Amino acid sequence: MKDTRQSTVGSVGLVKTHYFTFAEPPGHLALVSGKRLSPVTLAYETYGKLNSDATNAVLILHALSGTAHAAGYHSTNDRYAGWWDHYIGPGKAFDTDKYFIICSNVIGGCNGSTGPSSINPETGKEYALDFPVVTIRDMVNAQWRLIGHLGISKLLAVSGGSMGGMQALQWAISFPEMVQSVIAIATASSLSAQGIAFNEVGRQAIFRDPNFNNGDYYSGNSPVSGLSLARMIAHITYLSDKIMHEKFGRRLQNKDLFSFKFDTEFMVENYLHAMGLKFVSRFDANSYLYITKAIDYFDLKSEHEGRLTSAFEGVLSDFLVIGFTTDWLYPSAQSREIVNALRVAGKNVVYTEIETDKGHDAFLLPDDRMERDIANFLKREFEKTGR
Amino acid sequence: MKDTRQSTVGSVGLVKTHYFTFAEPPGHLALVSGKRLSPVTLAYETYGKLNSDATNAVLILHALSGTAHAAGYHSTNDRYAGWWDHYIGPGKAFDTDKYFIICSNVIGGCNGSTGPSSINPETGKEYALDFPVVTIRDMVNAQWRLIGHLGISKLLAVSGGSMGGMQALQWAISFPEMVQSVIAIATASSLSAQGIAFNEVGRQAIFRDPNFNNGDYYSGNSPVSGLSLARMIAHITYLSDKIMHEKFGRRLQNKDLFSFKFDTEFMVENYLHAMGLKFVSRFDANSYLYITKAIDYFDLKSEHEGRLTSAFEGVLSDFLVIGFTTDWLYPSAQSREIVNALRVAGKNVVYTEIETDKGHDAFLLPDDRMERDIANFLKREFEKTGR
Repeated sequence: MKDTRQSTVGSVGLVKTHYFTFAEPPGHLALVSGKRLSPVTLAYETYGKLNSDATNAVLILHALSGTAHAAGYHSTNDRYAGWWDHYIGPGKAFDTDKYFIICSNVIGGCNGSTGPSSINPETGKEYALDFPVVTIRDMVNAQWRLIGHLGISKLLAVSGGSMGGMQALQWAISFPEMVQSVIAIATASSLSAQGIAFNEVGRQAIFRDPNFNNGDYYSGNSPVSGLSLARMIAHITYLSDKIMHEKFGRRLQNKDLFSFKFDTEFMVENYLHAMGLKFVSRFDANSYLYITKAIDYFDLKSEHEGRLTSAFEGVLSDFLVIGFTTDWLYPSAQSREIVNALRVAGKNVVYTEIETDKGHDAFLLPDDRMERDIANFLKREFEKTGR
Repeated sequence: MKDTRQSTVGSVGLVKTHYFTFAEPPGHLALVSGKRLSPVTLAYETYGKLNSDATNAVLILHALSGTAHAAGYHSTNDRYAGWWDHYIGPGKAFDTDKYFIICSNVIGGCNGSTGPSSINPETGKEYALDFPVVTIRDMVNAQWRLIGHLGISKLLAVSGGSMGGMQALQWAISFPEMVQSVIAIATASSLSAQGIAFNEVGRQAIFRDPNFNNGDYYSGNSPVSGLSLARMIAHITYLSDKIMHEKFGRRLQNKDLFSFKFDTEFMVENYLHAMGLKFVSRFDANSYLYITKAIDYFDLKSEHEGRLTSAFEGVLSDFLVIGFTTDWLYPSAQSREIVNALRVAGKNVVYTEIETDKGHDAFLLPDDRMERDIANFLKREFEKTGR
């Protein structure tokens, strides 16, 4: 019997990951750090069809641990769909009957795009910590090459949540002529001191794992202990205090009485352990270091003399900004700061603050209001193209 | 020249830590877990003088990493005074001209009281993880022996912040006839799911340190890497997002430009590293496990059929409860929950919610409003004794 979780109603169905590689001057990627990266491969997926005048392309950008696989299934046996399947498909917010959707894995990652676990052509071995530190701007510059390769000169929209939202903002700033609109969700113009602190303790969990071996662990045991601990710490920040209380409270996992041992006995402990274990099977510890660092470095204000409005002055896009009331990692006040700066800069911006108890994770979860606002915003933007 | 930081104005001056030991049945401590602990030593300090009818004794209870050294200096070379020196001394909130102040280190700790680093009389070696899991009630039961030893049959007040507040509440419930009043600060009737989650990732940081060696590290290298990481994680929860932004923001430590390396370069990172390093010189990793577990287990509601009001029904004390607006580890809503339950139970309770940007740490820091409210509350309570 077919797994009932795999529904094809409103699904893009079976999809494949594609790979685009560019290399050699002028094909290399000049990084913000001053270093160069070559060759550069981007893993990406597309859903729907590009129309004849290429006006319906939407670029989807993922968060810290995301992949190019945003919608559909890789095989009929897949238990889970892509990470934003609820929002991408025929008749969905990112309607694949109307739009051509592209999602690419970021550089620095470990899901098909060039990152620290890729082979360094100079040594024939994995880069490990010889991989250059990359920034959000570098990620966007690499995506720009992919968009050109796909024959698209202007994107109807760029959209993402969390680090994906940072990339979306950067796209509008780096390539104003190419971005008709931005949908930035649960994001910020820079990470808070508290956010940097959480990223740093996660990195330290990895650094302090004896298997880390200064990043050079690809031929031996991986620092799974440190990486899973980093993920456990991060998971606390993805949920609100309220949803943790609702989901787990102080309930015990398997019994009514305390063990008086150091077992993990509270449900919330078991949940975090499960999240940590699940993560290490799909993510590379070095990539965790590089991507959290890219998030820490992102700062539209400091790049524009401390004024966020200045960052947005040259932007030509319309904006839909979405914040969540209980998100404390990317608090909605940071969304409102973006909205305010955009309005001071005279831009066209719609803001939605969604009342939810789900915390930062809300941007990944089904939400009727988010679905509706994205669908309506995109529809209006598409009408502007004259289609 | 004398270090100017050591001021004797309003100071209790030079103080000594004392030790009280009880042992042998019926001297052993019967623990909530069903196990027994013997001998039990409590490290404690006292400031001021017990009056002739022993009506001016105030018991101060410390938080996770606190010690018996709450006020004054151990030597003329001490750079820092005791942990609550701002509030304890002649003319201060806990006025040592009027009151006899006692502060004892909790069992399970590592600052003079019996804990996992103490010698297990059965083996002649440190207990390590053979030390029994202790609860807040066990800590209070041990303190009860000390109070009896000091010839005090009724305490004018018991007071503490965070875990100290939990002990204060427990005192009023366990020994109603002995507690005239309670001053409970930045505390809760049980830790939230999020709080348990943070404690668990801290414990995991220790467990995963290769030097941990299942707790048996006293003759070798200590798990300082894990313990310092646990402290770094915890420190994030002690500060508010707002004070982190004010104190550190996104400023870099030593330079204006990013290093594009995995150095700790943001000020907030350096601060956390410094806090972690400082901690390992004064705290035992096993004690960190036991004390966080005691905090996780504390639950006045579940011990009284889910009703906090029931927990307080037999209580005879007056209460001063203090919460802080930006405390997200022990949110002020949890203080208000205590206040509400006390009022439903018909108790006399004063509540102060202090507007601050300092987060949970506020209870350790100088605050005029807290000082004033404690002083006034204690004065009224002392007047009730007929003195």
